[in-house]
Amino acid sequence: MNTKPLILVSNDDSVYSKGIKELVEVASQFGEVIVVAPDKPQSAKSHSVTLEEPLFLSTTSNFGNIKAFKCSGTPADSVKLAIHEVLNRKPDLVLSGINHGSNSSVNVFYSGTLAATIEGCLHGIPSIGLSLTTYEANADFTLAKLYTAQIIEKVLKFGLEKGTCLNVNIPYISVNEAKGIKVCRQTKGIWAEEFNKREHPLRKTNYYWLTGKYINFEPEQTDTDIWALENNYAAVVPLKIDLTKYESIETMKNWW
Amino acid sequence: MNTKPLILVSNDDSVYSKGIKELVEVASQFGEVIVVAPDKPQSAKSHSVTLEEPLFLSTTSNFGNIKAFKCSGTPADSVKLAIHEVLNRKPDLVLSGINHGSNSSVNVFYSGTLAATIEGCLHGIPSIGLSLTTYEANADFTLAKLYTAQIIEKVLKFGLEKGTCLNVNIPYISVNEAKGIKVCRQTKGIWAEEFNKREHPLRKTNYYWLTGKYINFEPEQTDTDIWALENNYAAVVPLKIDLTKYESIETMKNWW
Repeated sequence: MNTKPLILVSNDDSVYSKGIKELVEVASQFGEVIVVAPDKPQSAKSHSVTLEEPLFLSTTSNFGNIKAFKCSGTPADSVKLAIHEVLNRKPDLVLSGINHGSNSSVNVFYSGTLAATIEGCLHGIPSIGLSLTTYEANADFTLAKLYTAQIIEKVLKFGLEKGTCLNVNIPYISVNEAKGIKVCRQTKGIWAEEFNKREHPLRKTNYYWLTGKYINFEPEQTDTDIWALENNYAAVVPLKIDLTKYESIETMKNWW
Repeated sequence: MNTKPLILVSNDDSVYSKGIKELVEVASQFGEVIVVAPDKPQSAKSHSVTLEEPLFLSTTSNFGNIKAFKCSGTPADSVKLAIHEVLNRKPDLVLSGINHGSNSSVNVFYSGTLAATIEGCLHGIPSIGLSLTTYEANADFTLAKLYTAQIIEKVLKFGLEKGTCLNVNIPYISVNEAKGIKVCRQTKGIWAEEFNKREHPLRKTNYYWLTGKYINFEPEQTDTDIWALENNYAAVVPLKIDLTKYESIETMKNWW
């Protein structure tokens, strides 16, 4: 009997990013890895799924001996196709990343990395989204890989509660500077969007680029993921897929 | 002093859908309405934001005397542009919809309607997503409008708790059949994706259409949004934007 865990790896930066190669390298120490990920960058695509176009899936030799597929759709499409069309059994673990760029705080809503993670969780599979806090294409993943291995080990050993997945963010610092792994909560904050307004050269009408600056509403709190990252910890936030605010139900029942 | 509430209306079916026209009609009874919504359908775009393309914003006369803009981006882009570039003060209410099609249960993750709602909530504005359980372009919104008015009235009167927004789904039935409004929780369930696999006529390779059937994991529970809809109630689910699973933090702290 084969007891080697089956690990599905996806991401939102595409099969051609460095982060997914590094993740596959770590994951391979723990089980049989299969990659199904987008064929082009899908950052900020959130949990989009492709309904108005057909989806294409083809093999890629980008990961050497590891069985790998690229998908023409989004991260969520990739995980769905993997589970329903590629894998012959439900995977034991879904890993998404390692993303080039932070997905802490409210970035969970915009992130394709986390969408792939949540999609795995919706399917009842322990799922982990992993991000490194730099956009550098050629980033050094030494610390990220160290912590990724430690977290995978724990999740395979202890499992995750039903309906719970992990949002892991790793600071872009050296191994010597790193202080360890901290279990945190999602920081309350927002992107203060300052649109960059420009003029169309022909039409003379305006157009906008979405830019923005993150504002932390609670910089003094030490139990948040942003605090952890700013203080050289890797931040692990357990996320739930039941978004119901139960506390509000009783109050609102009195409305009618 | 002007005490008339300022109401931002958006959606994901575009400014040209019937549902947003009906919503604007209801909202106008409660305050000054401004529309900023996508210029083309954006269903299943989730919380995507547009980073790799410029955004265009232009007026539309589609809503008569109501000030209205169409945006080349997603529902989340539309709400961001509205708040930062169109409105001269923070709106008192964000309304998104009325969507053509249900957004109950796990559809919150895929829905553009709910993304616009959550975006409003992230900005600290009481926000309501509204959906009618039919895809019919020319649907009858009589019941939907009746309940929408009742819900807007209560939210303007009592407000919503910080970090909480509403996911409202209205069954496609007649006013006579309707049993009222029920405050519920998000149903546990999943889209069992059955991809429709086809052969490319030239290349002879496969491609896939995402189809699927919703599976309710708890059909016997009477406090869920799906149960409410199946029993002729409008379902109101309070949603939170803090996704942290607090119960798991303590358990996981013992991992390291």
